[in-house]
Amino acid sequence: MVFLFTGSTMALSALDFLLASKKSEITGLQQLLQMGKLVGAISQLVHVLQRERGTANIYLCSQGKMWGDRLYGRALKVQQAEQIVHQQLAELDPMNSGLSNASRLFSRIAAFLHSLSTLPLLRKQVQELTIGQPEAMLQYCEAIRTHLALIFEAADASCDPLISRSLLAMFSFMQGKELAGQERALGAAGFAACHFTDRTHQQLLDLIDGQERCFQTFFEFADARCVALWQRQLAHDSSEFERLRRIACTLVTPIGQPQELALRWFELATTRIDGMKQVEERLETILMACCRQRILDAETSRLRQEKEMVLIPPHDNHYPALIPPQLSRSILELVQQQSRQLQAQDAELANLRSTLAERKLVERAKGLLMQHHAMTEPQAHKALREMAMKQNKKLVEIAEAIISVAAVLGKTSL
Amino acid sequence: MVFLFTGSTMALSALDFLLASKKSEITGLQQLLQMGKLVGAISQLVHVLQRERGTANIYLCSQGKMWGDRLYGRALKVQQAEQIVHQQLAELDPMNSGLSNASRLFSRIAAFLHSLSTLPLLRKQVQELTIGQPEAMLQYCEAIRTHLALIFEAADASCDPLISRSLLAMFSFMQGKELAGQERALGAAGFAACHFTDRTHQQLLDLIDGQERCFQTFFEFADARCVALWQRQLAHDSSEFERLRRIACTLVTPIGQPQELALRWFELATTRIDGMKQVEERLETILMACCRQRILDAETSRLRQEKEMVLIPPHDNHYPALIPPQLSRSILELVQQQSRQLQAQDAELANLRSTLAERKLVERAKGLLMQHHAMTEPQAHKALREMAMKQNKKLVEIAEAIISVAAVLGKTSL
Repeated sequence: MVFLFTGSTMALSALDFLLASKKSEITGLQQLLQMGKLVGAISQLVHVLQRERGTANIYLCSQGKMWGDRLYGRALKVQQAEQIVHQQLAELDPMNSGLSNASRLFSRIAAFLHSLSTLPLLRKQVQELTIGQPEAMLQYCEAIRTHLALIFEAADASCDPLISRSLLAMFSFMQGKELAGQERALGAAGFAACHFTDRTHQQLLDLIDGQERCFQTFFEFADARCVALWQRQLAHDSSEFERLRRIACTLVTPIGQPQELALRWFELATTRIDGMKQVEERLETILMACCRQRILDAETSRLRQEKEMVLIPPHDNHYPALIPPQLSRSILELVQQQSRQLQAQDAELANLRSTLAERKLVERAKGLLMQHHAMTEPQAHKALREMAMKQNKKLVEIAEAIISVAAVLGKTSL
Repeated sequence: MVFLFTGSTMALSALDFLLASKKSEITGLQQLLQMGKLVGAISQLVHVLQRERGTANIYLCSQGKMWGDRLYGRALKVQQAEQIVHQQLAELDPMNSGLSNASRLFSRIAAFLHSLSTLPLLRKQVQELTIGQPEAMLQYCEAIRTHLALIFEAADASCDPLISRSLLAMFSFMQGKELAGQERALGAAGFAACHFTDRTHQQLLDLIDGQERCFQTFFEFADARCVALWQRQLAHDSSEFERLRRIACTLVTPIGQPQELALRWFELATTRIDGMKQVEERLETILMACCRQRILDAETSRLRQEKEMVLIPPHDNHYPALIPPQLSRSILELVQQQSRQLQAQDAELANLRSTLAERKLVERAKGLLMQHHAMTEPQAHKALREMAMKQNKKLVEIAEAIISVAAVLGKTSL
């Protein structure tokens, strides 16, 4: 019967889509590499912004007596870091981007850029002492939170489990470092004013607690080399810093010369934070190396694929040709090879994605609490945890409840 | 102090990324619309392939005495449906695609196209009676399974919760319909051969059970109008069909004229399956309408966004200009608006994604069981469920265990 061997033209074959699949995999990895560069640039920006915040705190709490001369240099460093971020952002080519999930990422970048644009006014107010320390601190923290949210979104957009893990480790570590930065700023303010309130004591304790929590997540997802580096640093934490920590967390009026204590505290806390920056840089190096290796692997695999395709004897591309069984098996082997490779990542990616999704909801609920109930990040986290314990529910369930209540009240926001 | 007001050029602003975010959202929705068309074309292809399978079964089981004259028409319908799928695939433009998660999708399409290319040989063997009914049935089922896997992947690639829900409902319904198609084919084979084994009885019972399970998921995710349509059809299920079902599930040798019984069974089962096709078409119509509405909404929102941007007075695009607080608030309002809109979908999307991820793992574990232990889909599902109950674990945990064991044994596959 002849009918079986005539028919329509087969425009695109299985092999065409195999090549397209591999090409798309490589494009995705290249985009992740670009994202990795952006994350590195933001990590640097956050670092110098944290230092500017600490300096501004000391300046404000000493009624402009201390570190007025340092403000300029700090702001300059931030502007330099901003410039590098801008270069990376321009390379994303937003209007012609093939990035997946890009609408969420771009929306985050818009929020990030807006937060940067509020800094000049803040600096002017700090400079002129027309803003209080708590309010200035709040604005710096809010800006940094917007920066970190961008990194979290990048982790969520990744389709590679290994790279998602790296990004999640990086986000958690940066979050921990940010809490350390807040601790430095709050402590510096207290020492400079020579006064700690009960509220400040509790805030400091919460910040220390929060750092532990973030580093736990880091331990869970980070590369073993980064974990080792951080553990070595933890082993060398200075006892002097711990002593000042204890003073800041327990005394109302520290004994000693305010200026000296503030400077010493800031110096020690900065050494510690600079150590964290090293870990962060290591995390970034490994992230980039991981991206580059994955691209190389995918390229090698594409070359092998193309080579094997050449071995497939030319056959009629018109459907429905009766493809010889042997040829059909060769094609099937190639199809299954690609499929196996992608599916090997699926289970892990699925687990990571649900981890990320839960964290995203918790972060958002915390953000709402911070915004509408004037809480700090650790306070918001504590509040969530307590609600969860009381109601015997999971943290993420409480977070979902808070988000839906806020949605009903029209209070949803960044 | 002047330093605060000089600095680098701000290449891209928050507003640029806001526009890019909206544009990317619209592009994503347009790609989903295209995907919806592909899903519709595949639904039609699966439908005619199911009918070809049933016809081939009757032909083979009657030793070529019945329906030899129908084979040509069935194959022709399949080829016509294939042509439409090919048109849709060409529109995906795989080598220049900005589709997210495209490597997985394209890999599935490659597998799908390969399975189509195996059909001409299968038809030749059926025609010449050189293949047994069980083996032919297996090959048809495998091809259809590859088709359905493609639809599942499309649901997974969607970033819109409403559309993901629609696609998931569609996938579950198509899966249920496929089990109904297998029931028709198996029953037709039994009636045509005038013999049902104990094994066939059990297989039929499992297929009926499996349909229930799929339709439950459909109820969970489908639009209320589709659910109502399906419930109306269920209310009109024929008692004659149920009587033949009972005979097929319980008797070894049905009483009556084999040819007549087979024809009647096939006719009634086909009426039922054609009804399912109507529901499927309704699902597709609603899916497409949903896509189009979402695109319209996003376009409207983009126009409004652009209009509001025009209202923002022109300001120096060079950083760090001191943006007036009022202007800064206008930009913030726009940024938050977009962010709110995207985040409103996040919680639901997160839940859906984890549902999808679990289903994906379960589907894959079932696939492995089917391949390496020669099980049918309902048998594989039953085996998974029994293991889960015995070990007091979740279905997805058992699925993960099976997949990792298979990976170690090098048995992973499609």
